[in-house]
Amino acid sequence: MKDVNALIDPHRDRFLSELLTLLSFPSVSNDADRKDDVCRTASWLSSHLRGIGLQSEVMATAGHPVVFAQRLERADLPTVLVYGHYDVQPVDPLDEWLSPPFAPEIRDGKIFARGATDDKGQAFAHVAAIDALLRSEERLPVNIKLLIEGEEEIGSPSLHPFLTAHKDLLAADLVVVSDTSMFAADTPSLCYGLRGLVYCEVHVQGPTKDLHSGQFGGAVENPINALATIIAGLKDKDHRITIPGFYDDVRELPADERAALSHLPGTAEELRKQLGVPRLAGEAGYDENEWRWTRPTLDVNGIWGGFMGAGAKTVIPARAGAKISMRIVPNQDPEKIARLFEEHVVRLCPPTVRLTVLQAHSAPWALLPRDHPAMSAARTAVRIGFGKEPVLTLEGGSIPVVQAFEEVLGLRTLLIGFGLPDDGAHSPNEKLDLDHFYRGIATVAALYRELGGAGR
Amino acid sequence: MKDVNALIDPHRDRFLSELLTLLSFPSVSNDADRKDDVCRTASWLSSHLRGIGLQSEVMATAGHPVVFAQRLERADLPTVLVYGHYDVQPVDPLDEWLSPPFAPEIRDGKIFARGATDDKGQAFAHVAAIDALLRSEERLPVNIKLLIEGEEEIGSPSLHPFLTAHKDLLAADLVVVSDTSMFAADTPSLCYGLRGLVYCEVHVQGPTKDLHSGQFGGAVENPINALATIIAGLKDKDHRITIPGFYDDVRELPADERAALSHLPGTAEELRKQLGVPRLAGEAGYDENEWRWTRPTLDVNGIWGGFMGAGAKTVIPARAGAKISMRIVPNQDPEKIARLFEEHVVRLCPPTVRLTVLQAHSAPWALLPRDHPAMSAARTAVRIGFGKEPVLTLEGGSIPVVQAFEEVLGLRTLLIGFGLPDDGAHSPNEKLDLDHFYRGIATVAALYRELGGAGR
Repeated sequence: MKDVNALIDPHRDRFLSELLTLLSFPSVSNDADRKDDVCRTASWLSSHLRGIGLQSEVMATAGHPVVFAQRLERADLPTVLVYGHYDVQPVDPLDEWLSPPFAPEIRDGKIFARGATDDKGQAFAHVAAIDALLRSEERLPVNIKLLIEGEEEIGSPSLHPFLTAHKDLLAADLVVVSDTSMFAADTPSLCYGLRGLVYCEVHVQGPTKDLHSGQFGGAVENPINALATIIAGLKDKDHRITIPGFYDDVRELPADERAALSHLPGTAEELRKQLGVPRLAGEAGYDENEWRWTRPTLDVNGIWGGFMGAGAKTVIPARAGAKISMRIVPNQDPEKIARLFEEHVVRLCPPTVRLTVLQAHSAPWALLPRDHPAMSAARTAVRIGFGKEPVLTLEGGSIPVVQAFEEVLGLRTLLIGFGLPDDGAHSPNEKLDLDHFYRGIATVAALYRELGGAGR
Repeated sequence: MKDVNALIDPHRDRFLSELLTLLSFPSVSNDADRKDDVCRTASWLSSHLRGIGLQSEVMATAGHPVVFAQRLERADLPTVLVYGHYDVQPVDPLDEWLSPPFAPEIRDGKIFARGATDDKGQAFAHVAAIDALLRSEERLPVNIKLLIEGEEEIGSPSLHPFLTAHKDLLAADLVVVSDTSMFAADTPSLCYGLRGLVYCEVHVQGPTKDLHSGQFGGAVENPINALATIIAGLKDKDHRITIPGFYDDVRELPADERAALSHLPGTAEELRKQLGVPRLAGEAGYDENEWRWTRPTLDVNGIWGGFMGAGAKTVIPARAGAKISMRIVPNQDPEKIARLFEEHVVRLCPPTVRLTVLQAHSAPWALLPRDHPAMSAARTAVRIGFGKEPVLTLEGGSIPVVQAFEEVLGLRTLLIGFGLPDDGAHSPNEKLDLDHFYRGIATVAALYRELGGAGR
């Protein structure tokens, strides 16, 4: 069995040339004028997948189509569902691009184009790895299914229905997604968990209409004051959330996991400087990585009420509102947290106003335990592809598609990204390091082997 | 000496006809297209004042002109400075008027026209009283100065400079203003005090730019949460303001004054229903009139921060802000209160954010003690004009011109209004009850006599 790098070497120029072709399609999913371009991208990709030896078709959705492809080798091999997206962000501001966003240009060992890292370049690493494996060995070490959608940059509105409608077609053992960044160029990394989200709105209604604060001030509750009292009652001075029961199900990290996180590059002072705050503000007893990745949070994302213009208006507004969200972690249950939140808000609300709590939406957390076989396989694969043991990180945010795979297909997701934090995913001059493209292909090929048991 | 009603009777039709002429001028001060109409109104009024026996001139300001008139009888008589305004509010929505706003119409004993009550009708009651007194007695019981401005409805921007520039011309013993409403048609009233105002803005700056609440939530203070904590720390559950020293200088009302206020018509339950709140919210130990008139307040007039649109955005905003104002009462000092507020906000602000407190503006409270000679004169005058002892009330708001007279001329102001709460001062179908117009003239004539010592 050839070394994955030896497998890829003969095709480096071709893979690059094919990626440049893919990058030249202006598949901007939020632009109605680009609808045909989006469809042409899907057709090219599906046709290319057929060309390298997969079954593939372009499948319609209510929005932009999905490219689906598969190659099922043997029933006893695990099945990997690779997710990616061929649509891209808009290109504004266009005049800040040094080369046209859809005329890919290579400068200093980097490919500059819209979609280079997010996500055409990373998704195509899978296509190239499959291609290389098939050319060399005429078979794949796992059963492969590819789902490459065209609406990720507009929030994947059709993905959930698509998964629901094609559960059997998409049946697999694991989802693999390459659409994230590594810690740094010299620090390959794997992300093994995401926080979930519970997002609510709190509306406080005071008097039936806005009142003059001179005429009625002192006799009636001001809904903004009441809302502030509610919000202030949700956290204490030590940055702990005061909702009763909120922390009950929070997984405490084992000592070795805490130690591993604490040894990651970067310091709290660097983070403080990056954010430009006078002081960081996190729970006592935890460090800055735990604050962002493993501890639950509560943040007001928006607040409004009364007069917001310039100058002075002496109004007691009829109503005020706030959007309040919580990041949840293993093993918190979104529905339980939403209920505890609402109960506490009701308790905090003075009886002098009327309260409405709306549950906007929620998303579960995700965790692929560090000793999960897929994580072990991925660590080996990165070591082979990047020549270095990856560090293990988490993400404080949520990735909706990961939650969709969990919810609809019951599948866990391995996040194995090859981008870099400075790739400019949604900015002008988006790029992908050529070195990371090739190492990504090798890593993916190694990953398939590991997952299929062929690596050992 | 003739009874004031006998004095006025012969001229009732003429006074009405003159008021209708005054009301027919479309002197909308905020409408640039009406600038000539505003000036023509001033000219007509000044000319009319000369016609009845006063010295009068139209005096230029940076904006609309002031009509000034005077008649100085004798150095040993007190000098009364009557303030009013000849400009009016816009008329929108025009299609809701039953008769054209500048074609005054009398229906059911009421004059319908823009400015009928606010303030042409009430200001003209003074002109008519002077006219009647001069026709009957060829002299006035006091020295009279009239200052009728044309910018009240746009915030009197030229008044302060005008007072400052003409201190000697305007020197007087008392200001009298008829531009307010009585308690009810069957309850004539006099207002003997106003609350003042301290208006501030509080700005909280967190990170240098908006952050993703997933990536950084838990490690950094959210400026909206910090602002809510500050606001919640300004009042307690018993609706008391918690700023140290805030109540130190608050005048406690003598028992008889409290009793008088508590006997006014109206109940807390009526107020609650009017405002549409589940429960009123005022300081324990005080009733609803004290809450609105004699106790200081703190209200958030506006708040903003983060994402206010529809849907969910998971942002930790870089900044948040609020407009917060306090109604102040005798003997609180606006500057001291502003300082105490700022000091307390600084104390309440967590060290994890940056704080800015802006003092927007302030206005002193005003009080004409119930036993002040002008109040006694006014009570007698209302008793004569309306046939009933007036109740004494206060206003929870501020009247900027009253503060200007206090600050620039060092003069106290008697508020003696003849309007009614349902006059619709800034609404379509503004009206003035004819009965109140005539009773107002009689009251003013009696007031002048009382103030000049001629009533006794």
